[in-house]
Amino acid sequence: MKIGVIGLGLIGGSFALAAKKFNIGASLYGQDNNPKHMEEALNLRIIDHPLEVDNYASMDVILMAIPVDACLTLVLSLLDQINDNALLLDVGSTKSAICKHIELHPKRNQFLATHPIAGTEFSGPSAAFAELFVEQAQILCETSKTRPDLLEWAVQWFRNMNMEIHEMDAEAHDKHIAYVSHLSHISSFMLGKTVIEKEKDERAIFKMAGSGFASTVRLAKSSPDMWIPIFKQNKENILEVLKEYISNLEHFERLLESDDFDQLFKQLKNTNTIKTILAGINEKNITK
Amino acid sequence: MKIGVIGLGLIGGSFALAAKKFNIGASLYGQDNNPKHMEEALNLRIIDHPLEVDNYASMDVILMAIPVDACLTLVLSLLDQINDNALLLDVGSTKSAICKHIELHPKRNQFLATHPIAGTEFSGPSAAFAELFVEQAQILCETSKTRPDLLEWAVQWFRNMNMEIHEMDAEAHDKHIAYVSHLSHISSFMLGKTVIEKEKDERAIFKMAGSGFASTVRLAKSSPDMWIPIFKQNKENILEVLKEYISNLEHFERLLESDDFDQLFKQLKNTNTIKTILAGINEKNITK
Repeated sequence: MKIGVIGLGLIGGSFALAAKKFNIGASLYGQDNNPKHMEEALNLRIIDHPLEVDNYASMDVILMAIPVDACLTLVLSLLDQINDNALLLDVGSTKSAICKHIELHPKRNQFLATHPIAGTEFSGPSAAFAELFVEQAQILCETSKTRPDLLEWAVQWFRNMNMEIHEMDAEAHDKHIAYVSHLSHISSFMLGKTVIEKEKDERAIFKMAGSGFASTVRLAKSSPDMWIPIFKQNKENILEVLKEYISNLEHFERLLESDDFDQLFKQLKNTNTIKTILAGINEKNITK
Repeated sequence: MKIGVIGLGLIGGSFALAAKKFNIGASLYGQDNNPKHMEEALNLRIIDHPLEVDNYASMDVILMAIPVDACLTLVLSLLDQINDNALLLDVGSTKSAICKHIELHPKRNQFLATHPIAGTEFSGPSAAFAELFVEQAQILCETSKTRPDLLEWAVQWFRNMNMEIHEMDAEAHDKHIAYVSHLSHISSFMLGKTVIEKEKDERAIFKMAGSGFASTVRLAKSSPDMWIPIFKQNKENILEVLKEYISNLEHFERLLESDDFDQLFKQLKNTNTIKTILAGINEKNITK
C-alpha cells in the first residue's frame, strides 16, 4: 500500500509516522514546498520516498496536510489525477469551504473531509511524532458522500491509530470549532500583542511572567501561514464568536468599574465548571 | 527556628515544604480556616504543628499565604503580636494596598512584601510541593523599609530555594503584573464563560476541544476567592490593561470584517515574537 502525504509539517509528518507505526507494510511518499522540510522528512525517516506529481496516480491514499487555502487550490486537480480506487483526505481546520468546492467533482466519493483535533504549537517535520493522534478526536464530515469501502478503510486506519471518531455536518463543524479552537487562537494572539506593545517600553515585565501567562499565550506562537487562511474561510462564524467574547470582556469591565464584585464572583464561580469539561480533554500535548 | 504559615493552600503549603527541604532544622507551624486543609497539611507532614493565635509571638517568621483581602484584615494585628525580632511576609499578587496599609505601623520594618511568581491551577495542601519555587521569580517590594538583618535572612531563604530575586517598587509591580498575570486570568475566565454559555445548547462541542483550548482556559479553573480580591485591589491597572486588550480584539474584528488579511498577517507575524519571550519563562509548572 502506498500512502502519499502532501505537507510534511507537524500534522502531515505525524500522520506519516503514525501510518508507518500502525499500518504495517505501508510505503510513505511525501511532498513539501520547503526543500529543507523535504530533506528533514527523509533524514528523519518520516517518509520513504519523495512524492512527485507523476506518482499521484499510483498512490492508494493521499493526505493533504497543508494550509486550508492551499487545499482549495490543489484539491480538484488531485481528484482528477488519483486512480479510481484511491482515497483523498484533507485534515484542515475548516470543512465547509472544501466540501462545497468539490461537491460536483465526478470523484467526490473518493474524498473524505477530516479534522484531527490534535496539535502542538510547534511546526515542521522535526515536531512530528507517531503518537500525536492517540486518544484524540477525529471529526469526519459528510461521510455519506464518501464511497463506503474507502470510508471503511479510513475509519479503520484512524481506529488503528487509537483516534476517537466523530461524525459531523461540515457547517456544524465550522460553527463549533470557532468556539473551541479558533477563538482560543485569537484570544491568545491578541493577549500576546497587548503585552508585546507594552513591552516596548517596559522590558522588565517579562521577569514577572510565569506559567499562567505562558499557558494563555502559547497559541500566539502559531503560524500565520496556517491561521490566516482559517480565519478567512471561517470568517462569519469567527466574527460571531468574537463578538460574544468581546461582549463578555466588556461586561466584566463594567462590573469591575462599578465595583459589582458579587456579580463578578458569581461569573467566575460558574466559569469554574470548566474544570469538569477540561478533565475530559486529553492534555498530554500541552507537555510536548 | 520556628516558621509559621497562615493559609495552607498551594503557595503556603509549598513554602512550608520548601522551608523543610531547604532550611534544615526549621519547625513548621500552620494555620488554615478550613479544618480539612489543616488535617491534610498535618497528615501530609506539610506542617509539624498547628499554629494558634497564642503561638504568634513565639514564631521567628510568619508567612501569610491567604487571599489579598484577608491579608489586609490580618496584617496589622499580626504585626502587633509578633516578637521584636520576627519577620512577617506576605505573598500576594498585589503589593500597593498592603504596603500602604502598614506604612505607619511601628513594626513596619519587620515586614517584607513578596510576590513569588509561581503557581499551578490546582489548590489546597495536596497541590503543594517543595520545588514549586525553584528557578521562579520572587519579587520583593519596598525592601528599603525592611530591617536589613531580616531582609538579609529572607533573601538567603529564597536563594536557598533557588528563586530568582528581583526588587521592584510596589506600584510598578501592580501595574506590570496586570499585564502578565491578571489579564491572562481575565482572558481565560471570559473565554471559558463564552464557551460554557454556548455549551448549554451544544454539549457536543467539547468533543472538539483539544489541547490548545485546554491551555487557554486553564486559568479559568482558578479560585474566585483568591482572584476577586486581586481584581478589587488592582482595579485601576486592570481596567487600563483590559481596555487595551479589548481594543486589540476589536481591531482584529474590524480587520477580519473588512478582509484586510495582509494587515492581520502582519499582526500575527509580529506577535510570533512572543516565542523568544516565552523561551525565557520556565514552563515546567504547566506540566504539573
